[in-house]
Amino acid sequence: MTALPGWERSPAFVFDATRCALSVLDQAHLPFEQRYLQPGSVADCVRVIREMNVRGAPLIGLVAAAGMAFAARADASDAALAAAAALLIASRPTAVNLRWAVEDLQAVLRAAPLAARAEAAAARVLALQRSESACCARIAEHGLGILRALADTPRVRERGVLNVLTHCNAGWLATGAWGTALAPVYRAAAAGIAVHVWVDETRPRNQGARLTAWELGEGGIAHSIVADNCAGHLMQRGLVDVCIVGSDRTTRAGDVCNKIGTYQKALAAADNGVPFYVALPCSTIDWTIADGVREIEIEERDASEVLQIEGAGADGVLRSVRHAPLASRAANFAFDVTPARLVTGLICEHGVFAANAAALAPLRAVAGAAP
Amino acid sequence: MTALPGWERSPAFVFDATRCALSVLDQAHLPFEQRYLQPGSVADCVRVIREMNVRGAPLIGLVAAAGMAFAARADASDAALAAAAALLIASRPTAVNLRWAVEDLQAVLRAAPLAARAEAAAARVLALQRSESACCARIAEHGLGILRALADTPRVRERGVLNVLTHCNAGWLATGAWGTALAPVYRAAAAGIAVHVWVDETRPRNQGARLTAWELGEGGIAHSIVADNCAGHLMQRGLVDVCIVGSDRTTRAGDVCNKIGTYQKALAAADNGVPFYVALPCSTIDWTIADGVREIEIEERDASEVLQIEGAGADGVLRSVRHAPLASRAANFAFDVTPARLVTGLICEHGVFAANAAALAPLRAVAGAAP
Repeated sequence: MTALPGWERSPAFVFDATRCALSVLDQAHLPFEQRYLQPGSVADCVRVIREMNVRGAPLIGLVAAAGMAFAARADASDAALAAAAALLIASRPTAVNLRWAVEDLQAVLRAAPLAARAEAAAARVLALQRSESACCARIAEHGLGILRALADTPRVRERGVLNVLTHCNAGWLATGAWGTALAPVYRAAAAGIAVHVWVDETRPRNQGARLTAWELGEGGIAHSIVADNCAGHLMQRGLVDVCIVGSDRTTRAGDVCNKIGTYQKALAAADNGVPFYVALPCSTIDWTIADGVREIEIEERDASEVLQIEGAGADGVLRSVRHAPLASRAANFAFDVTPARLVTGLICEHGVFAANAAALAPLRAVAGAAP
Repeated sequence: MTALPGWERSPAFVFDATRCALSVLDQAHLPFEQRYLQPGSVADCVRVIREMNVRGAPLIGLVAAAGMAFAARADASDAALAAAAALLIASRPTAVNLRWAVEDLQAVLRAAPLAARAEAAAARVLALQRSESACCARIAEHGLGILRALADTPRVRERGVLNVLTHCNAGWLATGAWGTALAPVYRAAAAGIAVHVWVDETRPRNQGARLTAWELGEGGIAHSIVADNCAGHLMQRGLVDVCIVGSDRTTRAGDVCNKIGTYQKALAAADNGVPFYVALPCSTIDWTIADGVREIEIEERDASEVLQIEGAGADGVLRSVRHAPLASRAANFAFDVTPARLVTGLICEHGVFAANAAALAPLRAVAGAAP
């Protein structure tokens, strides 16, 4: 496997196991300011997760794991660790990876003698990040195969650039390494494929315009931000060769729960014969459910996220403006479900799989494996 | 026909034929301020159309007609009128009503003696608005039939409210009277049907959040603003009973060019069995083209509309903020084309028509009729 150049560990999550010290990129101020935060306690980790200074399901899991390491350093007793775990899990109760990572740390620590727990915890945090890094690298490699084949079609060769469309942010800002949906893009660029990314703005929280655009810019990847309304038109005019998005939760039948709006992109892709891929670590698959539309409850968030938008003014100061009438209310569903029938394939660390129960079943045995 | 209560002429376009004086609601400052502008020349009309102080295909048609009246007052020669017509038509490329209205005025003025042209033009502007008002009222009435039938379905009766989804603004702010897409909503509410409107925010210019929400609020219609990403999810969960949108241009085969994002809503509606209607005056039909995707050139607007968002700060002052990295660029297509196969029906002043060439053909004879 060709190694990806650069950060095997994401600059968004820098953990020093020797000193048990963490530095995370403060995503609440991107793309305007690059500040690092140094959470050093369980309470600090809970705060940066809850306030969304860090976001992205895999990254939150790592920060929570670091929180457990801080807990073990302060008081490694089972009771103290259980209390820390409860606080961390409650910081964003819907995030599956968070619970998974915290419970993983708890299991590792319970198996260690009290005096060795702090060191074991720090080592485990690094191991989780290394495992995630390897996972992202494999997703990148499997995705590269798809992008290379598309780059070799007459249409793309004639245009001279491969157009990828993505929604929300599933890059290195969302994980401990290369990201999921963006990993194949970075890999393709490293392999010399001329690639351009259409970045969905991703209302209401604008993760596309704020985070994905910035991340791609840092990586030197050509990109254009578009309104979420634009994807259908672009596909209709032949300006999108492939869509790749991430996933917050995928059912055993291949239904994909992801950022609100993903379903509409998948519909547009299907209507225009554009391949629609979802990149995800196998840990994102929820084997307990099949029908995502019926079985996944969708989080509703505060209406202010729709009614107000945050950005930098001419003076560079970050502020919120309200573009809706004061008397109007809003509904704010955070995710939607893309039915498996609209998904061309799932790109995971083990390969590219069709989005149906039979094709995914073999992954069940390996999905829960330790790093 | 039951009369609609209130404004047969929209407060957005107040034309005094005696004084040949125009007053238009400045939509660039809604919903924060209600200012009126008094364009008094061709250049003024071009500016308010181009800067989008007025918008909405029927309304810009009326403003352009008023521009021709101002031209006739200043210099009623054929050459001067032709020059004015060219300037006005070039102010917004996509809207077919604009060209239609300008050419209608030209034809009327050429038929009049030079000395009578100014007066004839002013009278014609009023006649066009009256005609549009009657047109909107008939669209309201035909749409009411559809909404009444839906309100009588078990699902809506059980819920106790009819949920309509609309995109962009096609209400009284977009026309010289009651609007097109919103006319049936106002009519249904007046008929005692409990109606709630899902208002697409409509990025990048936010006409939904800023204009439709305000207009509905003024009219006492229950509504909720949603991100453009949300419609698919709402339909999937059975929360939308019908979509009604407007149109900037419709082909003789029923392809609908409308605000960017309309196509994605139509796809979601088709995927979920939600009826998708387009409300339009027949003058919006472009009989010269059939295939909207191939034949309609889509206006590209400035990237800043995507990269920046305007709204009121906590101090109530209107300002723009940028939510994207300074180094990122954006693409900004203003419209898209919804293929006829996704359109349940076209609601026009003459009734409800299937979106295909055979069904629409009989309208051709009446579409160009004098007001």
